[in-house]
Amino acid sequence: MKKEHTTPTMKDVAREAGVALGTVSKVVNGLPVGESYRQRVEAAIERLNYQVNSYAQGLKASRTYTVALLIPNTRTPFFADLVYQINLALLKKKYRMLLCCTDYQSGAEQEYITMAQQNKVDGIIGLTYNPHLVIEPNTPFVSIDRSLGPQIPCVASDNFAGGQMAAEKLADLGCRNVAFLRIGSSLTNEPNKRKAGFENGCLARNLSYTMKILEDGDSLEEFRSFLSDHTHQGKLDLDGFFCVTDRLAYQIIRMLKDMGVRVPEEAQVIGYDGARILGEEDYLCSTIVQPTREIAQMCVELLLQEAMAVRPPLVCLPVSYAYGGTTKEG
Amino acid sequence: MKKEHTTPTMKDVAREAGVALGTVSKVVNGLPVGESYRQRVEAAIERLNYQVNSYAQGLKASRTYTVALLIPNTRTPFFADLVYQINLALLKKKYRMLLCCTDYQSGAEQEYITMAQQNKVDGIIGLTYNPHLVIEPNTPFVSIDRSLGPQIPCVASDNFAGGQMAAEKLADLGCRNVAFLRIGSSLTNEPNKRKAGFENGCLARNLSYTMKILEDGDSLEEFRSFLSDHTHQGKLDLDGFFCVTDRLAYQIIRMLKDMGVRVPEEAQVIGYDGARILGEEDYLCSTIVQPTREIAQMCVELLLQEAMAVRPPLVCLPVSYAYGGTTKEG
Repeated sequence: MKKEHTTPTMKDVAREAGVALGTVSKVVNGLPVGESYRQRVEAAIERLNYQVNSYAQGLKASRTYTVALLIPNTRTPFFADLVYQINLALLKKKYRMLLCCTDYQSGAEQEYITMAQQNKVDGIIGLTYNPHLVIEPNTPFVSIDRSLGPQIPCVASDNFAGGQMAAEKLADLGCRNVAFLRIGSSLTNEPNKRKAGFENGCLARNLSYTMKILEDGDSLEEFRSFLSDHTHQGKLDLDGFFCVTDRLAYQIIRMLKDMGVRVPEEAQVIGYDGARILGEEDYLCSTIVQPTREIAQMCVELLLQEAMAVRPPLVCLPVSYAYGGTTKEG
Repeated sequence: MKKEHTTPTMKDVAREAGVALGTVSKVVNGLPVGESYRQRVEAAIERLNYQVNSYAQGLKASRTYTVALLIPNTRTPFFADLVYQINLALLKKKYRMLLCCTDYQSGAEQEYITMAQQNKVDGIIGLTYNPHLVIEPNTPFVSIDRSLGPQIPCVASDNFAGGQMAAEKLADLGCRNVAFLRIGSSLTNEPNKRKAGFENGCLARNLSYTMKILEDGDSLEEFRSFLSDHTHQGKLDLDGFFCVTDRLAYQIIRMLKDMGVRVPEEAQVIGYDGARILGEEDYLCSTIVQPTREIAQMCVELLLQEAMAVRPPLVCLPVSYAYGGTTKEG
């Protein structure tokens, strides 16, 4: 279905309703907006006879056999592995991949969405931190780690189960007093569920726990203060840590070593992601491993699957625990 | 200059000369072939009036503002960083990047070259291990780390200088008896010069040295035998190692630790690449750092530069030494 020039676009709807483009995007993708805005947008949609085309129709237009991937960078091992696995999954289906490293900047992302709307690419897989992304409802888009509305499938590891697994593992390994440490984007996204899963696991096991949550831009040194606040008479009163990423685990382990705390003898640390040294050697730390290959395959499957009338809004894929030297068992 | 259908191709030349396509490719790109083959190919080129189009002409055809990158994978940190830097350099020039992870297989590479010949992409940057690659002389192509003939610019770190720097560094740090260790592809490529540079540095400093060279597919355990052959009465008679990559350095350090040899107190180790933990934290080992950003910018510059009548066949970019805990100074 090629778009005709007379067909109204989301921009037309925004102009007609007198609201921002982002508001229209939210309404058509089923995200929450103020009720009065919703009514204005819906009225404008009706007046203009704006068609919320189905995903499948979008994809059926002239094929380019090209899919764009939006990802912050390829240096972070989790992203590097995703890029690699998505590339292989696409090549297997004879699709090419346009790569766009967003560097956590929003500029380029919208441009690729426009390309998809103009059928210059067949679809987009995106791991994006842009809260202002405007996605026309007929744009084939699969999101990783962050829900962009019920019309756009989101694929993630089972972050809740991963958090719970970390708590249970620490309990199994004899911890009595643990902490959850987090730094990162304050956007609502799937990885945020690691915290709730961890709490749930602690409660199920009667494991005493505390939390320290920093936002992007906060100084990591606040974790150092947190650790010394929990040190009494030269002894740390925490014996287990679940860190929201392997990167944070790496940084916390360094702080613990600086303080003379032996890892894993005195404090055990579990990270999240499953980063390996040099991409394929040992795990950097004990960790909850994200199933990157399965995430990649699922993204490609959902993006290219035309036959599917109803697509799942959120797919959570199972994680696993891997020993990496910072917990007690071998 | 759009190719006309009546224009003879390299395939026609091969048929006319009765030789393999790869032989024609070698002749037009100035690589060595048997003299009788060269004569047959040159005669066929003359008979068919085959045009060896210039690179610039190839690029001037209808623009797609898309460049393909061929690279083994994005998991190895050096590749991951190259992909990231090339992506940024292209985006800065408003170019998109098609990524093709070759996984060291040759299949996909030739397909992208065909795309470039058909002007579906404007050019190719490739880090390829395929010895049978056939590149039409009008294909805009920049190679990383491996010369594909004088017509195709090759960009690399200054591998010779890097090898020499490693030897001099080990000498400066008090080593007396060092070894060069290498495992990898037996293809002639730029990284092979690390060995010659190292030898040169050892000779300049009167540093006693030995070498152990393995081919792809050989067992790493041969290095373990090498190390135990150099152990007499429980003492290793080598006190410095230059490993051809950080990955090999990592593996050798593990073997040394298994043998009870303390690094860096008893044996110092320098790798090559500049791999950092989690892509941007500490160096994994003391290392010769490849200038990935400069390599990326140079590749993009050479690929997109039309005005350049004569392009450099080989560009070597300066490396630097970085301390990473496996040598003596801090």
